Amino acid sequence: MIKVVRDAWIVTQDPERRIIRGDIVIDGEKIVSVGPKYNGTADVEIEASGDIAIPGLVNTHTHIAMTVMRGAVDDVPFSDFLNRVFTIDSERTDEDIEIGTKLGCMEMIRSGTTTFVDMYYSEDIIAEATKEAGLRGVLCWCVLDEDKTTQKGNPLQNCTRFNEKYKNERKIVPGAALQGVYVCNEETCRATKEYSDREEIPLTLHLSETRGEVNEHRRKTGKRPGEWLAECGIFGERTIAAHSAWMTMHEVRLMAEAGMSIATCPVSNMKLATGGVAPIPEFQEYGVNVSIGTDGSTTNNSLDMFSEMKILGLLQKSSRWDPTVTPAQKLLDFATINGAKAIGMESQLGSIEAGKLADIVILDGKAPNLRPLLPENIVSNIVYSSSSGNVKTVMCHGDMLMNNGNILTLDQGKVMSNAEEMWRALCLR
Amino acid sequence: MIKVVRDAWIVTQDPERRIIRGDIVIDGEKIVSVGPKYNGTADVEIEASGDIAIPGLVNTHTHIAMTVMRGAVDDVPFSDFLNRVFTIDSERTDEDIEIGTKLGCMEMIRSGTTTFVDMYYSEDIIAEATKEAGLRGVLCWCVLDEDKTTQKGNPLQNCTRFNEKYKNERKIVPGAALQGVYVCNEETCRATKEYSDREEIPLTLHLSETRGEVNEHRRKTGKRPGEWLAECGIFGERTIAAHSAWMTMHEVRLMAEAGMSIATCPVSNMKLATGGVAPIPEFQEYGVNVSIGTDGSTTNNSLDMFSEMKILGLLQKSSRWDPTVTPAQKLLDFATINGAKAIGMESQLGSIEAGKLADIVILDGKAPNLRPLLPENIVSNIVYSSSSGNVKTVMCHGDMLMNNGNILTLDQGKVMSNAEEMWRALCLR
Repeated sequence: MIKVVRDAWIVTQDPERRIIRGDIVIDGEKIVSVGPKYNGTADVEIEASGDIAIPGLVNTHTHIAMTVMRGAVDDVPFSDFLNRVFTIDSERTDEDIEIGTKLGCMEMIRSGTTTFVDMYYSEDIIAEATKEAGLRGVLCWCVLDEDKTTQKGNPLQNCTRFNEKYKNERKIVPGAALQGVYVCNEETCRATKEYSDREEIPLTLHLSETRGEVNEHRRKTGKRPGEWLAECGIFGERTIAAHSAWMTMHEVRLMAEAGMSIATCPVSNMKLATGGVAPIPEFQEYGVNVSIGTDGSTTNNSLDMFSEMKILGLLQKSSRWDPTVTPAQKLLDFATINGAKAIGMESQLGSIEAGKLADIVILDGKAPNLRPLLPENIVSNIVYSSSSGNVKTVMCHGDMLMNNGNILTLDQGKVMSNAEEMWRALCLR
Repeated sequence: MIKVVRDAWIVTQDPERRIIRGDIVIDGEKIVSVGPKYNGTADVEIEASGDIAIPGLVNTHTHIAMTVMRGAVDDVPFSDFLNRVFTIDSERTDEDIEIGTKLGCMEMIRSGTTTFVDMYYSEDIIAEATKEAGLRGVLCWCVLDEDKTTQKGNPLQNCTRFNEKYKNERKIVPGAALQGVYVCNEETCRATKEYSDREEIPLTLHLSETRGEVNEHRRKTGKRPGEWLAECGIFGERTIAAHSAWMTMHEVRLMAEAGMSIATCPVSNMKLATGGVAPIPEFQEYGVNVSIGTDGSTTNNSLDMFSEMKILGLLQKSSRWDPTVTPAQKLLDFATINGAKAIGMESQLGSIEAGKLADIVILDGKAPNLRPLLPENIVSNIVYSSSSGNVKTVMCHGDMLMNNGNILTLDQGKVMSNAEEMWRALCLR
């Protein structure tokens, strides 16, 4: 099956960061040609003259099933927020997890995300919903100490079972997660990391989101979380540390030495007012791979990576009084090729190049907010002036998920008709 | 001519901030009924079942004609930014000002803004383009010392001429502007304020955007800009101070005593990394009317008030380590009823109430990013998870500007086909 995207501005994100006007040819799951006019016949013709083709965005930290809890707990002190969300979280059903995931997938498709890294329990329910949506889900079952969880059974065994079941899926990449040092003791951390090493699967964790968790860990262990985790051997090439906001340069260096990635979550950190700002320029300088996550819908409250790129840039520039940090090209890198690297798929994803999987998002080149549109300002327009409303067409792993604004994979009406009832059941008690 | 919006969630922004499910009836320019089912016949039926109707957003600080310069000067040191923008600004033609304005109007319509406060020269060109677009423009001709401007003739005389010509327009509200204390001496400031008082027109100005301008003014006069302007009598009920980022509490109190408004521009301040954060909670506490501006397209680079509301909230919460400041309802107030108050039109605009002008924006209630959608989270969804892509239909002063995503007032193709050529002419030399 041949698909061709015609006459687009192609923001390749290849090693030279080339911007090319031309055609993209997709054969099955893969891109086979980028740029030259395609004179053959195609099974699917995608007219994109003057539109913008970018690699599908990679959201490296979210809790997608929480989408059904959107707007339940805003503008309150952090301790009230935690209490409320933990209560709601512990009372969820398979059905509202499924609907939450599908709603989140719809939102991600509409906003140009084709791959997301999820951290939650019940990832089997989330996997089935994600498969139906057609997105690539890196689904990391959340592990914590058995005496601190509401999960039935042992969390690492649950994680193992999930991984066994989903390890040969086309677009589901199972993984492991550590909820954080506040609920994961050394044994839990080491066992989970050993499992992730043995299976060669991604390992994600919450790291130093708040000052409180850093101080508490120092009080208990004498070490900052990053130091302690490095000593326990938890950091490695497959490790993705979400947030990473309250860091010392010593911790940044330890993370760089491990060759690991972070998923910075600027909107979540700002909305919860947790105070820390991830030291992005230092992460870059020392060689930590920087990627971006939206976090879940109770803390953002959207899953929009376009908005997240812009706000990350604004936060870094404003908090450092330096407009030159995190320029537009870097912000786009974080959301594309660096996201692919974080999940160990940079040879297959994150750019529009022949041989890579066809994860392609097409933005409307006739949208007034993206004009004037020239090679000179196209990256700036994508990062600083686009909106999720500009996304026309989305392809993931060669599959069409949205065409000209129409989602092709899910029964949207059915998903949405259930959403309010579930919100009431979960969030109004 | 009767128009009816059917069965929407109406976010009235009335004094009780009621959210009502029902119909809105518009007779000519004005709203005549909000809520009850309308059983009469209508000339225009707007099916909006389950959609969200909000008052048209009010953007209180922009330079709309600069939209054609989008993405020309990003991620550079502030001094380089100023030099580059001033050079481009001084070489503009009537034609690129017209196209820039129309492009900006298209972007504003698509993102739900129905009223904007503009500060620029050549406001006569901007007025004609704005009339064609159908938006309400509060167009403030920029006054500065005659020896410091590239305007032909005396700026205050230019302003006066413009005001005389446009004072009886239906949707154009002419006004005056002071560029800032760095190019406006006491005589210029006093004469412009006297003119604005005599004509009872809005007066807007740039105030304390950067530390540099504050320090320079103190060096020259011994006073901070806010103190000096208050002493010169420039502050008053019709004064709107844009930015107002580097303020002392003494200045905040002086501004409150004058009964004036500010137009905070969070994205612009963050992107330029000018360091100051407008003290929004203190402005509110002392009684300064807080409204929001996007600033122009070289500093933002969008004109999207949905994004601006969210980012303002994020900046305030994060910079104060307090998630309770600027809650969602307040952010929506800033962008609607407070914007109307800033331009002296709170009895006519800023809420959906019988007797007010019909400035109404309808958001797609079927958009996944706005679901679940209930009275309990509707304001949070508008502020924290909506995007300009959710705007379906826009009405200004009773006129339909966009219907179901189609702009009705401007020849979009013609505007856009000129935009790139003008960008090249202005920004590539």
